[in-house]
Amino acid sequence: MSYQQLHQHFLKISHFNHLDAICSWDQAAVMPDGGNDARGAAMAELSVLIHQLTTAPQLVDWIAAAETETLDAQQTVSLTAIKRRWQQANQLPEDLVMAQSLANSTCEHAWREQRKNNDWQGFKTNLAKVVELAREEAKIRAAGTSLSRYDAMLDLYEPGMNCEKLDVLFGEVKTWLPEFIQRAADIQARKTFIMPQGPFAIAQQKELGMAVMQLLGFDFTHGRLDVSAHPFCGGVPTDVRITTRYDESDFMKALFGVIHETGHARYEQNLPTQWAGLPVGEARSMGVHESQSLFFEMQLARSPEFTKLLVPMAAKLLGREQDVAFTEANLYAVNTRMKRDFIRVDADELTYPAHVILRYEIERALIEGDIEIDDIPALWNEKMQAYLGLSTEGNYRNGCMQDIHWAGGSFGYFPSYTLGAMYAAQEFAAADRAIPQLREKIAAGNLSELFQWLKDNIWAKGSLLSTDELMTAATGEPLNARYFKAHLERRYLSAE
Amino acid sequence: MSYQQLHQHFLKISHFNHLDAICSWDQAAVMPDGGNDARGAAMAELSVLIHQLTTAPQLVDWIAAAETETLDAQQTVSLTAIKRRWQQANQLPEDLVMAQSLANSTCEHAWREQRKNNDWQGFKTNLAKVVELAREEAKIRAAGTSLSRYDAMLDLYEPGMNCEKLDVLFGEVKTWLPEFIQRAADIQARKTFIMPQGPFAIAQQKELGMAVMQLLGFDFTHGRLDVSAHPFCGGVPTDVRITTRYDESDFMKALFGVIHETGHARYEQNLPTQWAGLPVGEARSMGVHESQSLFFEMQLARSPEFTKLLVPMAAKLLGREQDVAFTEANLYAVNTRMKRDFIRVDADELTYPAHVILRYEIERALIEGDIEIDDIPALWNEKMQAYLGLSTEGNYRNGCMQDIHWAGGSFGYFPSYTLGAMYAAQEFAAADRAIPQLREKIAAGNLSELFQWLKDNIWAKGSLLSTDELMTAATGEPLNARYFKAHLERRYLSAE
Repeated sequence: MSYQQLHQHFLKISHFNHLDAICSWDQAAVMPDGGNDARGAAMAELSVLIHQLTTAPQLVDWIAAAETETLDAQQTVSLTAIKRRWQQANQLPEDLVMAQSLANSTCEHAWREQRKNNDWQGFKTNLAKVVELAREEAKIRAAGTSLSRYDAMLDLYEPGMNCEKLDVLFGEVKTWLPEFIQRAADIQARKTFIMPQGPFAIAQQKELGMAVMQLLGFDFTHGRLDVSAHPFCGGVPTDVRITTRYDESDFMKALFGVIHETGHARYEQNLPTQWAGLPVGEARSMGVHESQSLFFEMQLARSPEFTKLLVPMAAKLLGREQDVAFTEANLYAVNTRMKRDFIRVDADELTYPAHVILRYEIERALIEGDIEIDDIPALWNEKMQAYLGLSTEGNYRNGCMQDIHWAGGSFGYFPSYTLGAMYAAQEFAAADRAIPQLREKIAAGNLSELFQWLKDNIWAKGSLLSTDELMTAATGEPLNARYFKAHLERRYLSAE
Repeated sequence: MSYQQLHQHFLKISHFNHLDAICSWDQAAVMPDGGNDARGAAMAELSVLIHQLTTAPQLVDWIAAAETETLDAQQTVSLTAIKRRWQQANQLPEDLVMAQSLANSTCEHAWREQRKNNDWQGFKTNLAKVVELAREEAKIRAAGTSLSRYDAMLDLYEPGMNCEKLDVLFGEVKTWLPEFIQRAADIQARKTFIMPQGPFAIAQQKELGMAVMQLLGFDFTHGRLDVSAHPFCGGVPTDVRITTRYDESDFMKALFGVIHETGHARYEQNLPTQWAGLPVGEARSMGVHESQSLFFEMQLARSPEFTKLLVPMAAKLLGREQDVAFTEANLYAVNTRMKRDFIRVDADELTYPAHVILRYEIERALIEGDIEIDDIPALWNEKMQAYLGLSTEGNYRNGCMQDIHWAGGSFGYFPSYTLGAMYAAQEFAAADRAIPQLREKIAAGNLSELFQWLKDNIWAKGSLLSTDELMTAATGEPLNARYFKAHLERRYLSAE
């Protein structure tokens, strides 16, 4: 049966993806510097192999034959996911892939120094090539579909999402966000809080992180916590590797980073095992993945109820039981501070959407050819002024040169962050309706029903449903941004 | 040029070997238990790929063509090494490889429990299949060569070595070893020593191990020290991973283990970079590899001169500057204790050869078909009585069931351990002749000339020379066991 051949072939590919995931983790978390060149060569060889397997000539016939075979409903969805993976790999001509790999890595590599030097002139020269090739990619991916060029890129990360829907979602957010931020700032200005003072020993921070992971149900027989310069969730579902970085002056950076990655990790650890290794057994989308990390970090862990749990744990494990900063009210205030600032990755959940919408609007216009690279700095400044009241004039470093995404050729990824925040709020609201006394249970540390809800409704579904179907089955409706707004109102506009 | 095609093909294989090495390290050092099944499947897939690449049909023609091409002297040696690797992979029919893989892993897996239960009857049932297939392998490998069946197995680990030479080397050792051990025991019985008392904190032991690695020239930009149940040296030359295990009651186990693995590591870290990834650029043999670990552990680190360096470091880093056990004379005595005992892996350098010769004699007869499995326990007991004066009657657990090698189908490996000890003694003697005041330099911590000698004479040679050529170039003659005996006499029969 051709479907079975495809099934076996994609399991084989997943074995090589497994090795890639582990060696990537190793490279980021433990590899000594001197190992990098040989590792790079070895991993490039593996990438070539995986690409060859994903575009193997026999797949054309197998897919055609499998489409005529009698399959059950789940196999049919699995076949669609396989075909999608195969098409994505086959769409691009090899010379474009090579040219992109070269241009993106050149731009990304130079960006590290150029950003430090605020060197927009240098950066834009490299970026021109990256954008030229990304436009070419978008054109090829859109050809023969009803998608616009940017839609085609977006679809890589968030299948089923498109500009039409995004414009509605983000457009609505834009109508209230700037004023909302101002009101939240005013309320916050009337509150006082005490910032916990370091140093916080790394060993104690790690112990706290592990204790919170345990509380959050992370399965340590199928995963680990380590350190890396840029925190991530990697590995494979049977062995999920999350990382963090410690700052001795601020224990909350690592703690909430660990909680965030634990959300990603629990999704991976609870994907449907019967579909392990196949595209249909993977997480639904980048946005849904982000919804799990933000569910854990923003919906759950920054809530007043979870703060009740967290404060005594943190005080005990950090040796701060006598510290006046370690009260529920104070740490809740600290953990829900809002600050208009330049840098997306450091932004709080309230200002974060402004950063994302700004990038979405600019990168979409760039890929569609409506603007050119030279237009970026002025647009960036204009939008930062409008959304956050900040000027980035001449400040490229903390403006359009702050992120690695465009330098690395990743256009269409940014919206996932805010979609994730919206999905998370909607999911939490549904769980809150489904589980009696949820907030009391959280405060008491009884989290099992909440995790069971996530497992049943999100994790165990893998990619068996489309995102709309998944959200509808879990929450009663497709994505609706009102839950996100309601969440922000409750947290930032009430006197909580 | 066909040689160039082979060169590129084997570099490609080395990239996959790189991934295999890192994922194997990961499995032993950091992987959580629950990751094992999926990892096993992924690594099996990689093994199949590496075997396919090493036996790719085009290699027949490329090798034949390359043999007619004009190559320089080093390329000629490289081609021979490539051909050897290719032949070894091609010799065995695939069904034999599969049958062995199954039989060996079944036997090894069951052995873990059977050993605990002293269950020889259970063990020998599985071992029968392993031996049957190993005999088949040996027969195939020997066919068309002048080698005996056991020689053909030995040649896998120690190219150029054979039973004729081993009988001379080991036969001579047997003439003096039992009496030597008795004399050493008598001398030792008249000495006193104080065993350092634990606990020794693991963090301090690790710091000491790292400090000694630094002193021994380990390059931390190209390697790491970690923990695993069974210490080993893994990774790749640009990123060497050594492991140890800590015993809080005895810091010397981990310390000398680390020193041993550092010897392996420095060999790997200093292999010829211009041949990186090719068979000719790899370490010469298992015996020569072991000679480097034993050079570091036995020749260098257990010497009275190195003890002078070690004692203040250990006393300081372990917080034992006031401990009466931490004197040069006492720790030297502790580190050169000799004890006749059952277990090879715990044996000192003086009794170790007895363990190895015993196994050589039995496994050789077994592979050649001169004895059967039922003969092993009695032979083991007889030889342990003769060499070490110990009875293993009925004690299978600490007798013929103590090692994993036979259960795993590794016949022909054991001699490498004692060959390594012999090479090491001969190498040290040559370095001692070549470097003025070597022992004074060691005592003063000036080790650079010694390491340069090893680099020039052993490490940087890779597999460019045969073992005989290597030893002759480095020491003036092929392997000669008299250096090993002289070393043991100086250390165990003098009043040092």
